[in-house]
Amino acid sequence: MFNKILIANRGEIAVRIIRACREMGIHTVAIYSEIDKNALHVNMADEAICVGPAKPQDSYLNMENILSATVLSGAQAIHPGFGFLSENSKFAQMCKDCNIVFIGPSVAAIENMGNKSKAREIMMSSGVPVIPGTEGSIDTLEEAVLAAKEIGYPVMIKASSGGGGRGIRIIRNEEELKKVFDSAKGEARISFGDDTMYMEKFIENPRHVEFQILGDSYGNIIHLMERDCSIQRRNQKVLEETPCPVMSQELREKMGSVAIRAAKAVNYKSAGTIEFLLDNDNNFYFMEMNTRIQVEHPITEMITGIDLIKEQINIAAGEKLSLKQEDIKINGHAIECRINAENPKMGFRPSPGKINIEHMPGGNGVRIDSGIYDGYILPPTYDSMVAKLIVHGRDRKEAIAKMRRSLEEFLIEGIDTNIEFQLEILYNPIFEKGDYNTGFIAKEFNY
Amino acid sequence: MFNKILIANRGEIAVRIIRACREMGIHTVAIYSEIDKNALHVNMADEAICVGPAKPQDSYLNMENILSATVLSGAQAIHPGFGFLSENSKFAQMCKDCNIVFIGPSVAAIENMGNKSKAREIMMSSGVPVIPGTEGSIDTLEEAVLAAKEIGYPVMIKASSGGGGRGIRIIRNEEELKKVFDSAKGEARISFGDDTMYMEKFIENPRHVEFQILGDSYGNIIHLMERDCSIQRRNQKVLEETPCPVMSQELREKMGSVAIRAAKAVNYKSAGTIEFLLDNDNNFYFMEMNTRIQVEHPITEMITGIDLIKEQINIAAGEKLSLKQEDIKINGHAIECRINAENPKMGFRPSPGKINIEHMPGGNGVRIDSGIYDGYILPPTYDSMVAKLIVHGRDRKEAIAKMRRSLEEFLIEGIDTNIEFQLEILYNPIFEKGDYNTGFIAKEFNY
Repeated sequence: MFNKILIANRGEIAVRIIRACREMGIHTVAIYSEIDKNALHVNMADEAICVGPAKPQDSYLNMENILSATVLSGAQAIHPGFGFLSENSKFAQMCKDCNIVFIGPSVAAIENMGNKSKAREIMMSSGVPVIPGTEGSIDTLEEAVLAAKEIGYPVMIKASSGGGGRGIRIIRNEEELKKVFDSAKGEARISFGDDTMYMEKFIENPRHVEFQILGDSYGNIIHLMERDCSIQRRNQKVLEETPCPVMSQELREKMGSVAIRAAKAVNYKSAGTIEFLLDNDNNFYFMEMNTRIQVEHPITEMITGIDLIKEQINIAAGEKLSLKQEDIKINGHAIECRINAENPKMGFRPSPGKINIEHMPGGNGVRIDSGIYDGYILPPTYDSMVAKLIVHGRDRKEAIAKMRRSLEEFLIEGIDTNIEFQLEILYNPIFEKGDYNTGFIAKEFNY
Repeated sequence: MFNKILIANRGEIAVRIIRACREMGIHTVAIYSEIDKNALHVNMADEAICVGPAKPQDSYLNMENILSATVLSGAQAIHPGFGFLSENSKFAQMCKDCNIVFIGPSVAAIENMGNKSKAREIMMSSGVPVIPGTEGSIDTLEEAVLAAKEIGYPVMIKASSGGGGRGIRIIRNEEELKKVFDSAKGEARISFGDDTMYMEKFIENPRHVEFQILGDSYGNIIHLMERDCSIQRRNQKVLEETPCPVMSQELREKMGSVAIRAAKAVNYKSAGTIEFLLDNDNNFYFMEMNTRIQVEHPITEMITGIDLIKEQINIAAGEKLSLKQEDIKINGHAIECRINAENPKMGFRPSPGKINIEHMPGGNGVRIDSGIYDGYILPPTYDSMVAKLIVHGRDRKEAIAKMRRSLEEFLIEGIDTNIEFQLEILYNPIFEKGDYNTGFIAKEFNY
């Protein structure tokens, strides 16, 4: 087992990983940008090394500096968290070249799944259902126009290196396509350093249902059930729950075994997620695989009792998966609300500033994964998510009741948050029935 | 089901009950003393009624005022929490007379179990093993001297109406007995309004192992496994865990069935606890029954997934127990640390004052039941316990690691706390081995 791990991230996920390491007796090294010197993850780690100025490119994406910090600190492994370098195969390769363990899948798996059009090809040849779309990448507007005609509108164009909803455009006719193609490419270039695009059929108002995967270095792969992440605003997840409210045991088994097949196609090890779109007729399509831990991983931990970060570390240290598929049982129901520093009434404008935590919810079945503390000054530089509120109940009804009362208890001052917005979702009758899809927020709210 | 409940308590247990009610859709009425007008439970309840001045006798023990508040607010039931009026059979009777549901057992059960010498008689006649001791109460020093000779030193004298360790004296010879008898009686009179005493054999360094009981109004009684509460300072519990580290499945079944037998002897309904002393040879003796919810109930909730407060409310509303003994399974391991506003280095002197919560621990498997908020001014009037930190791990080792890192994260300023002391316990090798008894703190610490 490692005795020191460097965490190449910030915010709540860095804190989450530090906590797991502490519980495993592993020393932790935080990295931080100049603007983050008072951040919680810096306070909590055993050591902390500044890797550059505030700008992500100069610090949290600065591969050379991060590797130097790792060597300097004597850490044997790097946990990349999510975002930043977590799905960067070049960085994973550099770690390997430096004899540092990258806590994640192989370079090849990141590469294959990270390139969305390549991933699609692999899935098709493995018999995993995919959304009708282009076989390869689309480089020019002319190619895009032709492809859209073949697939039939509405279509989507997506960045091959994308994720988190950025670089995605929904297009309903040729005129629209002409208008947005260049800007989508530009956004992809800025966000991911790669403007390769592909196109697929746009499935109207599907559910976003994803399966959590765990694989080891010995070919053992299991799934840890599904998460429903359909509550999205502009392709950004807002609230997630597990189990999916409309999932039958039969469909779960079917989707779960397809998810394992997908992961096996790239010899997947570590924690990963197979994202599917599920339509009204229970057809499901591979969307993408996230080759990293996800924001919403805690809800899976709540219903399975398995600590995914610890599993990632054990797997990276060469341990065999101690769990078998039949060991994974669903216990109750879990919901996560992302608590963002933003103002929903002002177009979800980010709201950085000094945070006063007046009161945090607590009690039975309430978990908070937060990256802030009372008096912390939230910089405007990074993601606006400051905390995750996770609840666990015996059933969906209890989990909803628990989330409502927890959100109602949560008192943050100094910054704007989306807590009221989350409450509106929780009290929405369609949400309450579980009868929602990815169009829910656009349809139900004036946002 | 009730639509409004009055909570006749304060602090974290009042908050705990309010949370359960909110999740059940039940309106809550808090009561408070004049000094508590800014307390968290007052803020969190739907309504709040002042029932008198700070002194407990004038407010939280003021039965007439509390009943008036209940009638005034239209609440149909009273949850008494623990301490205060929770084991006061007169109050339970008064509730009944006013057609208000007392959320707890019957008046007779409180009476029978509340009188420790009577409880002992009932247990003996039901075949529940008790500690050798006096059959009835001891009124004079002369009786005490004779009884001690018969039982054999060391002996204990205890207040019949006692609880929480007050009014208890351990006596090793006749001289000591003569010295402390009157003061013990006096303490009992002041603490419980009743100076009836009884005597029993003092069992050297046993473990304190208790069983959680749930019973309904239809004669169904189950147990929810044990809690080990041996980590005590002067008979006050400091840290509790479940399962008990030395419990075998065979002994658990034996003690569990005796616990159910004990509860059946008083037709017990609601949540209750049978406390046993367990000696080195696995002999166990009934110590007392607490006819109320206990401080340490959350650890049982963590390993069983059952919300004990909700169960209490359901039972009081006349519902049948939805659980059978075979439904109760142990899932992992849980530990609770009581976080007290006190200074262990100054004889555990209470430390009231303005509280700055700099940082609360969180993350996977961490639960906080707290009665405070940032900026709250803790009055000197009541119990010094301000929060309970509860962790849940897959096994004892993980739970200990989780509790250590959670305590290390906990930053409270403005008052002194016992957090460092709890950490010393958690890092103690004897504790780590689970090889402790009720003499642990006295032996291991200079406190």
